[in-house]
Amino acid sequence: MSAWLMAAFLRGLDAGETVALTRAMLESGKILRLPSVTRPKVDKHSTGGVGDKISLCLGPLVAACGAAVPMIAGRGLGHTGGTLDKLEAIPGYDVHLSASRFEKVVREVGVAIIGQTAELAPADRRIYALRDVTGTVACIPLIVASILSKKLAEGIDALVLDVKVGRGAFMADLPSGRELARALVSVGKSAGTPVRALLTDMDAPLGLTIGNALELREAIDVLRDGGPPDVRELTLALGEEMLIAVGLASRRPAARARLLEALRSGAAFEHFERMVHLQGGDTRFVTDPRRLPRASVLLEVTAPRAGHLVTVDARILGHLAVRLGAGRHRAEDPVDPAVGVELLARRGDRVEAGQPLALLHVRRGSSRAHRESWLREAASAFEVRARPAAATPLVLERVLARGRPGVAR
Amino acid sequence: MSAWLMAAFLRGLDAGETVALTRAMLESGKILRLPSVTRPKVDKHSTGGVGDKISLCLGPLVAACGAAVPMIAGRGLGHTGGTLDKLEAIPGYDVHLSASRFEKVVREVGVAIIGQTAELAPADRRIYALRDVTGTVACIPLIVASILSKKLAEGIDALVLDVKVGRGAFMADLPSGRELARALVSVGKSAGTPVRALLTDMDAPLGLTIGNALELREAIDVLRDGGPPDVRELTLALGEEMLIAVGLASRRPAARARLLEALRSGAAFEHFERMVHLQGGDTRFVTDPRRLPRASVLLEVTAPRAGHLVTVDARILGHLAVRLGAGRHRAEDPVDPAVGVELLARRGDRVEAGQPLALLHVRRGSSRAHRESWLREAASAFEVRARPAAATPLVLERVLARGRPGVAR
Repeated sequence: MSAWLMAAFLRGLDAGETVALTRAMLESGKILRLPSVTRPKVDKHSTGGVGDKISLCLGPLVAACGAAVPMIAGRGLGHTGGTLDKLEAIPGYDVHLSASRFEKVVREVGVAIIGQTAELAPADRRIYALRDVTGTVACIPLIVASILSKKLAEGIDALVLDVKVGRGAFMADLPSGRELARALVSVGKSAGTPVRALLTDMDAPLGLTIGNALELREAIDVLRDGGPPDVRELTLALGEEMLIAVGLASRRPAARARLLEALRSGAAFEHFERMVHLQGGDTRFVTDPRRLPRASVLLEVTAPRAGHLVTVDARILGHLAVRLGAGRHRAEDPVDPAVGVELLARRGDRVEAGQPLALLHVRRGSSRAHRESWLREAASAFEVRARPAAATPLVLERVLARGRPGVAR
Repeated sequence: MSAWLMAAFLRGLDAGETVALTRAMLESGKILRLPSVTRPKVDKHSTGGVGDKISLCLGPLVAACGAAVPMIAGRGLGHTGGTLDKLEAIPGYDVHLSASRFEKVVREVGVAIIGQTAELAPADRRIYALRDVTGTVACIPLIVASILSKKLAEGIDALVLDVKVGRGAFMADLPSGRELARALVSVGKSAGTPVRALLTDMDAPLGLTIGNALELREAIDVLRDGGPPDVRELTLALGEEMLIAVGLASRRPAARARLLEALRSGAAFEHFERMVHLQGGDTRFVTDPRRLPRASVLLEVTAPRAGHLVTVDARILGHLAVRLGAGRHRAEDPVDPAVGVELLARRGDRVEAGQPLALLHVRRGSSRAHRESWLREAASAFEVRARPAAATPLVLERVLARGRPGVAR
């Protein structure tokens, strides 16, 4: 398998080979059927970003609009965060439900979010472990087969992908992101499941927080019809695609209206709260997020000069959050839910010299040397220039069918 | 390692990488020092052929001329025969000597021939096992590192290589054989051991026999100053290179005179007999080779028409010998010393219709269907044409130093 992975990495796989690999990996385990769930089933997968708490908002929101979202999510990987780590900031929240319990939560609430199980696409876990040690992770056909085999094992009717592009993303530039998105859409179609993809910006972190409890709080803000505009907008853009993909809306404006109504009415938040409850979480931490773990030491990062904040480097801040304890260096490491980075200014903002740009939420008792190093690292993520940079759209492109990307409006 | 082998297979290794790999594999185990052996130490390695019994003749012959030959030999692989299998046709012959016993035989006789041990270049065995199952055998840098790490672990002062070219060889054509030979010579030099290579023809089998006892008998004929001209000639050509490589002769004519005298005087045969004795073999089977195992059933292959025998296909006959029981399909299979193929006509001969071309030495009790299949397979190895083909020289080229092959005289 290791030799084959290297051959695939160096020589590539054609479309037919990628479909065959995806099917083989998918069929290496069980495929969820969830027979008691009658709603159309749809899920979203992101290729991984910094500050990306979209799943927490999107699953309950789309469930509130009539879909079923049987989401199997991941943990933080490298500098990117993980949905499970964020949910586990809620005391009691159980990401390891039995298959029947998972089905019950999806049936009753419309959404459940759990971790990978040994029964679904077991080949993917084994192959991923080999890719990790053989240097064959960065290979589009292998990425496609890994993502789709895991997601299609959920037995969903449609899948929406958020393919991140930029310095904080796995795909650094638009052409490579587009190549991945097209391959995902095309292979998904060949494997029998409609797949849509949005290419979205990941140069700067999403929202104003990086870190598990910090991000959970921000997601709750969105579910309560607030939150930062970019997190709201991406949640709505992906929600539109999900509703359209399973026929719960026929056009984007109608889909958006439905999503906005679910936020406004409280239905989205209520779905989240019920999901947390049925997954064993203490809902007092959801209804009153001030109860969530919070770091007692805050370090302030300030602007070195007046000007325009043209760069907020998602990769640097993602790695910094890991160093602060929000992520892992090794799979078995624990994470600290309280620590992370809180942004006080956004890319594009006009800033004054000495103005606070961010707060680092750090553990009590860290050494002076550590703090200085963290502050230096944080400072290197911000670039202030005399002239403003052109604004970057959040949704860069929409890939709906084989090889035909539409430029997002 | 498997992934790395595939990367090396698909992308190649440059000269420095191949030297580094060879050294690392060589240094993965012990390197023989044989401190009590004062003669210059030299060995020969062949890339594998059909009917290739040269090591049996060459080791004792070169020892009789004053060199030490601490030879670690192999078993049959695919359609090619193995020196150890041939020696084991002698009852009692032990290919598994201890290091001290091996040193004693080399010191006392000048030559010993044993099998691979766990102490020498252990990385090679493990890597070869992976190459076998990952389809990465046919890769020149990996072949070079495998051959040289094993042979240089013998602690020899010089190495002579017989790189076979043709339909019965691993390298089918002269350019690829030349590439392998040049790489072996160049990497050997960089690793600190002088290496010379002859490129020799392996379109037709070497000599008139294929099969373990049959070939042993033919080798004894050569050691007794007889034997087929091609086996004699290749033994002498390689012997010249070995004597010159360690300074026991300065020019080819002088080296050849010394080798011929060792054959004529009986010294070469006597060295063989003493080696067999010290390795536990029953020398009555060597002094009277008629005692060696012999198949009781002979099947005759005849010429389909009159003309010139232009092809005697070494690959077909090598595979046939394996099917008859002379070789192995799996490493753990036993071999039958008695069976094989005996040629009655040679490539280039003028033959009459119905004239016997070969005898298949087969096991008693084989089925009629097997016999018919073997005869059909044997017949397909011979091509008789109205016009003669151009004669092929036995020694095609001589590669003495990096990138400068000399055309053999």
